[in-house]
Amino acid sequence: MRQSQLLTKAVKEAPAEEESISARLLIRGGFIDKLAAGLFNFLPLGWRVHQKIEQIIREEMNGLGGEELYLVALHPRGYWEKTKRWQIPEIFKVRSQSGREFALSWTHEEIITPVAQKFIFSYKDLPKYLYQFQVKMRDELRVKAGLLRTKEFIMKDLYSFHSNEKDLDDYYEKVKKSYFRIFERVGLKKSTHLTYASGGTFSPFSHEFQAVTPAGEDTIFVCPKCRLAINREIKDKISKCPNCKGKNFRQERSIEVGNIFKLGTKYSEAFEFSFQNKKGEFRPVIMGCYGIGLGRLMGAIAEICCDEKGIIWPEEIAPFRVHLLSFAAKDKKKQTKVQKTAEDVYGNLIQNGVEVLFDDREDKTAGEKMMEADLLGIPWRVIVSEKTIEKGNVEIKRRESKGAELVRPDKLLGSVR
Amino acid sequence: MRQSQLLTKAVKEAPAEEESISARLLIRGGFIDKLAAGLFNFLPLGWRVHQKIEQIIREEMNGLGGEELYLVALHPRGYWEKTKRWQIPEIFKVRSQSGREFALSWTHEEIITPVAQKFIFSYKDLPKYLYQFQVKMRDELRVKAGLLRTKEFIMKDLYSFHSNEKDLDDYYEKVKKSYFRIFERVGLKKSTHLTYASGGTFSPFSHEFQAVTPAGEDTIFVCPKCRLAINREIKDKISKCPNCKGKNFRQERSIEVGNIFKLGTKYSEAFEFSFQNKKGEFRPVIMGCYGIGLGRLMGAIAEICCDEKGIIWPEEIAPFRVHLLSFAAKDKKKQTKVQKTAEDVYGNLIQNGVEVLFDDREDKTAGEKMMEADLLGIPWRVIVSEKTIEKGNVEIKRRESKGAELVRPDKLLGSVR
Repeated sequence: MRQSQLLTKAVKEAPAEEESISARLLIRGGFIDKLAAGLFNFLPLGWRVHQKIEQIIREEMNGLGGEELYLVALHPRGYWEKTKRWQIPEIFKVRSQSGREFALSWTHEEIITPVAQKFIFSYKDLPKYLYQFQVKMRDELRVKAGLLRTKEFIMKDLYSFHSNEKDLDDYYEKVKKSYFRIFERVGLKKSTHLTYASGGTFSPFSHEFQAVTPAGEDTIFVCPKCRLAINREIKDKISKCPNCKGKNFRQERSIEVGNIFKLGTKYSEAFEFSFQNKKGEFRPVIMGCYGIGLGRLMGAIAEICCDEKGIIWPEEIAPFRVHLLSFAAKDKKKQTKVQKTAEDVYGNLIQNGVEVLFDDREDKTAGEKMMEADLLGIPWRVIVSEKTIEKGNVEIKRRESKGAELVRPDKLLGSVR
Repeated sequence: MRQSQLLTKAVKEAPAEEESISARLLIRGGFIDKLAAGLFNFLPLGWRVHQKIEQIIREEMNGLGGEELYLVALHPRGYWEKTKRWQIPEIFKVRSQSGREFALSWTHEEIITPVAQKFIFSYKDLPKYLYQFQVKMRDELRVKAGLLRTKEFIMKDLYSFHSNEKDLDDYYEKVKKSYFRIFERVGLKKSTHLTYASGGTFSPFSHEFQAVTPAGEDTIFVCPKCRLAINREIKDKISKCPNCKGKNFRQERSIEVGNIFKLGTKYSEAFEFSFQNKKGEFRPVIMGCYGIGLGRLMGAIAEICCDEKGIIWPEEIAPFRVHLLSFAAKDKKKQTKVQKTAEDVYGNLIQNGVEVLFDDREDKTAGEKMMEADLLGIPWRVIVSEKTIEKGNVEIKRRESKGAELVRPDKLLGSVR
């Protein structure tokens, strides 16, 4: 895409009240737009990142046998009465003209359970794995740090349905591995710790995936030997690392980027959702749920993958793979050659399926273009200028590295792939 | 995908109160699930169709130079006060714990206008084309006919921003052509008519795309010569066909599947959104908006593309391309051969990138499988049975045709592509 046609331009200042690094960088780079406290629009560059995160998660969910569906966001009050959760203060409630009451999608257990109930009757129908990407709306009193805690965000929620605990346990372990792959693919492998957190009536613990950063609002205790962590909320219940039995922990601030939870029969009992086992007996279906908030994950990545100049997007989720900059030359003939070389490079990369943002703007200086490239954080920066074309080269540089090198345009494709 | 693993099964009866053909077929086929009046969940098969419709529209919007973004669904009251539309009764209103009021996304002009205003200052920044797929929620008193009028649905809304009327007019014509391509690709080419409808203060008319079907709640007058139509709401203002000047019209019932509208300066004036022209003068930005409701479009397709046995999905939006059925054989040896042939066919099609739903269920009769295949409406039905393998063939049939033919399994790929 040509940057001259892009809606957004980098802006000098983020709103003063946005203090987190990620919010400031994402707003300044034109990735997101703050509509109100806790409400952010995703602008074209930011939406590309969000869509790439979504696609990675989709691939992993399909790999887990997940079937994608889409549940509505307006939930008649009755569904929330069944589980006695209507009164939760963070649920937005709305009343229609005709007097009907609805909850906005605070979560979707109350909807997925009766949906599954319509199609699952026997042990032969189990297990089943259903997931969606859908908006969640929460009446948060303490929104903060840009995308890290908002009133509205898209969540991937996966729900699993089982005939016995062993089957849930096995699937739960598979999801753990899948989550690690997701966090690796989005660039948070080193930062993310599987973390023991409080469970429910069915299971003593649930598990969170916590990404370490000073901007996090959670506190975890990381076992330095095996990387497992324990959420502060249950620290007094656990003295040794549940994995390696180590007793020393390092305290860290962190962001919860994923959560997996054995629901057991909590929701199936509320909805009287049972199946017939092999003996013909009726038993409540056993459930698990597995969430990832996409906006928060994107915020965590921006928070962790950056330097003082801007974001450094991990390859798989960068809005583009290559940021091509052409600098104006003083000499008219040279200018023509710079432009032609840049156009050729752009056309060649595009033709070969490489996603390129081409800074073809004529009203920006070389310095402005380079500053903006650092802010936007696209993995490969390619410069075409009077200087580089002198010996028939272009300059190529990774966003995170200090040194640049000169390569022949015909070698460029091999370098950035 | 193996049908034995699919969440849904076809059901005999749709809810009695759902009278429209499309709602009954979509519910019976397990494409959608009725949560409450006007609220439908999309189940895995239905969500596949919805996603394919979305992708077709996305491709066309990108072809129009559109930049995709994503605007929130919770809108602070102030934005709707600016345009004096807060009082619209069909807008769902919600109040937060802290007393703030929000409109749920009835539409997004009130949000896109101030977003565009942050980045558009000069004629050099124009034109711009921004679009999204996002949920709309409307407090409809007269929900009806399944997906055709609901309280919640995903809409594609494109907004264009121009420096002069000529530029808007030119783009508007391009969008018309793009919309025709969309309706052609989703299988509604023959049914859809460009229809004159009421305009606003800026333009005497807007244009709808109306798909003819007895289930429609609109009435249009179609010019049989040139296919143009006129909405009943403006029939008394127009005596001749605006295109070919014909005076005879055929009255039809129809569903509005798309709408394009010249907004002019209505919203830019409400938000004081202006740009500087070449002379340095400030002028209000000129806008257009272009919508398609995806759920309604899917409902219209099901309503129009069907017969008494079920849906006949057009190729590009069918949930799968091939429905492979294997029938049980009485003889054990033959049964083994049927199963092996079916598995080979399945593996081969999948490997070659063909989307296949494989009815591998062992507890369904041949008759049940064929009835369900007709209901689900996948374009190609392939049967492997004792009879077909006798001479080493499989049976192949288009959903809409009566006759089937036998082909060698190694010729199958060529036939269904």
